[in-house]
Amino acid sequence: MSTGSWENNVRKVVPYTPGEQPKEKVIKLNTNENPYPPSPKVKRILDEYNCDKMRLYPDPDATVLVDAIAERYNVKPSQVFVGVGSDDVISVAFLTFFNSEKPVLFPDITYSFYDVWADVYRIPFVQKPLTADFKIDPANYKCENGGIIFPNPNAPTGCEESLSMIEDIVKANPDSVVIIDEAYVDFGAESALSLIDKYENLLVIQTFSKSRSMAGMRIGYAIGSEKLIKYMNDVKFSINSYTMTPLTQLCGAEAIKDEEYFVNTVKKIVDTREYSKKKLAELGFEFTDSKSNFIFASHKSKPASEIFAALKEKKIFVRYWNKPRISNHLRITVGTPEEMDELFAALKEILK
Amino acid sequence: MSTGSWENNVRKVVPYTPGEQPKEKVIKLNTNENPYPPSPKVKRILDEYNCDKMRLYPDPDATVLVDAIAERYNVKPSQVFVGVGSDDVISVAFLTFFNSEKPVLFPDITYSFYDVWADVYRIPFVQKPLTADFKIDPANYKCENGGIIFPNPNAPTGCEESLSMIEDIVKANPDSVVIIDEAYVDFGAESALSLIDKYENLLVIQTFSKSRSMAGMRIGYAIGSEKLIKYMNDVKFSINSYTMTPLTQLCGAEAIKDEEYFVNTVKKIVDTREYSKKKLAELGFEFTDSKSNFIFASHKSKPASEIFAALKEKKIFVRYWNKPRISNHLRITVGTPEEMDELFAALKEILK
Repeated sequence: MSTGSWENNVRKVVPYTPGEQPKEKVIKLNTNENPYPPSPKVKRILDEYNCDKMRLYPDPDATVLVDAIAERYNVKPSQVFVGVGSDDVISVAFLTFFNSEKPVLFPDITYSFYDVWADVYRIPFVQKPLTADFKIDPANYKCENGGIIFPNPNAPTGCEESLSMIEDIVKANPDSVVIIDEAYVDFGAESALSLIDKYENLLVIQTFSKSRSMAGMRIGYAIGSEKLIKYMNDVKFSINSYTMTPLTQLCGAEAIKDEEYFVNTVKKIVDTREYSKKKLAELGFEFTDSKSNFIFASHKSKPASEIFAALKEKKIFVRYWNKPRISNHLRITVGTPEEMDELFAALKEILK
Repeated sequence: MSTGSWENNVRKVVPYTPGEQPKEKVIKLNTNENPYPPSPKVKRILDEYNCDKMRLYPDPDATVLVDAIAERYNVKPSQVFVGVGSDDVISVAFLTFFNSEKPVLFPDITYSFYDVWADVYRIPFVQKPLTADFKIDPANYKCENGGIIFPNPNAPTGCEESLSMIEDIVKANPDSVVIIDEAYVDFGAESALSLIDKYENLLVIQTFSKSRSMAGMRIGYAIGSEKLIKYMNDVKFSINSYTMTPLTQLCGAEAIKDEEYFVNTVKKIVDTREYSKKKLAELGFEFTDSKSNFIFASHKSKPASEIFAALKEKKIFVRYWNKPRISNHLRITVGTPEEMDELFAALKEILK
């Protein structure tokens, strides 16, 4: 075996750790998946798909999917960028827009992939502390910066930020691209999409992984000014021309057209979330007023780490981070009412 | 609409231009797709797929696919990296391994995505001239460098390089990662996979897009030392944890297990290629001795640009680049015998 100094030139990184995908049968409330299946119309796409077409490259512009998203959100197709999950979309946005010497700003408690992307692309960043009740202080985002990103509702806190506060931050930063990561917005927060015609530097990112029950199909999208989208596509076409299979494009287009199914599914989850809040309060938990499909909760007496371990023992997976400020919290995905009742029964036993 | 200086921080690039994907019915010999469908066993995967599972995130390690590839090539799963087409795999390899101040080396006539990746990731590079008969001169790759990549067989020339020449280059460069892009290797060249246990800095990249008829499913892979693969996975998990859908993983695994179908399909294409060489020679074309699924040909009297345009007129798409040294060449994908006969009939008319 050869030995040389080639390792000196390797880009060394500490990768993002995704939530566990257990192969055994468990109650899985750890990665904010939707407990309901996607629109039944998706199945027809697979049934009717002619596999002979797999020999051909996909449409690199993903026209069928881009058009369906544009129609749903009443924007031009040239204002829509699609990618392999919102992680792909955010990654391309980091690479495209965050090229300043000045630091990119995001909250100290937020999606834990942001600092990983900043690290892999060697982008300077500063994490701005949330307030004691896990809210964004807009004053923190009115300093020199090379870009801004935060989710709304924030993760893992579930807290919603107001549209007026978001506009305030965008307005104060005409020299940066401001990205609102709306992975969970359909569960109860107000989207910043209404502002994109007013601010050409505002990018809104959403996903099919949560409200549309398609985490396994890897579909994310960004909507913004034609200029922003053009720059992102230029970078995308400099990395991989064909990222989305025709099957994915067709399934995604079919799913987004089924508005009724989407509305019903979201309503069920929101109802279960509100029901779960009551139950968790009865069990002695405290939590933010989540507008997402998860609840970020801490127990008034039992440490989160212990509850996490005890639940895992009982084959119920929730998410726990041993990190500053949130090491006594659990992030619990909203499952079906039946799954949540099993969770509450388990918690009752653990807490007695 | 706001106007600020945000555009100053945009990563500006000239993207790769993929071959046209015409939406009308044409004879498509322009993007080196396989004219035959994928293994019929793939259809069963779609038929049997339970769409309810789409709500869950994929296995981030793509275990089912990685294991199938490892078994086929008799390597450990920890020696296999999978991505969204070999473009994704090469892109991750550029980002992971080419971090030196010294230039990365690749041929002047080669896959036209290499300089695009170097550009988007701001990697210095030098293009080394092929010889007059489009071969690699190994002496060109024995200088200081930050990495080396070339395809074997090369594209768009179709020329094969010998394994001993490749080993010579790898041996001379213990301080760099050397990548052999074997997108077309199954059509007649010798793979460098036999060298990976000897050189921990040698990475071999292959794809399902050509010999396995699955360009539309976006599956590429790299095989190398466990060290190389670990570094690539670290970078991949810093960009997008879940790049491959379960459907893609399952279809890919099913396809690679069908060795008999693969061998037969490749044989048909090789036979058609050799038949096509005879026909093209009769029509007054000159070409390299392609070991790939395309033929890189120039006509002794009629300019390639004119033939390209006349064929397009007749709804036959081949590939043409108006670039130094190759502006009088056409790259013609090997289709079915019937498609090739239509091509030859059209050429006969154009050349008369």
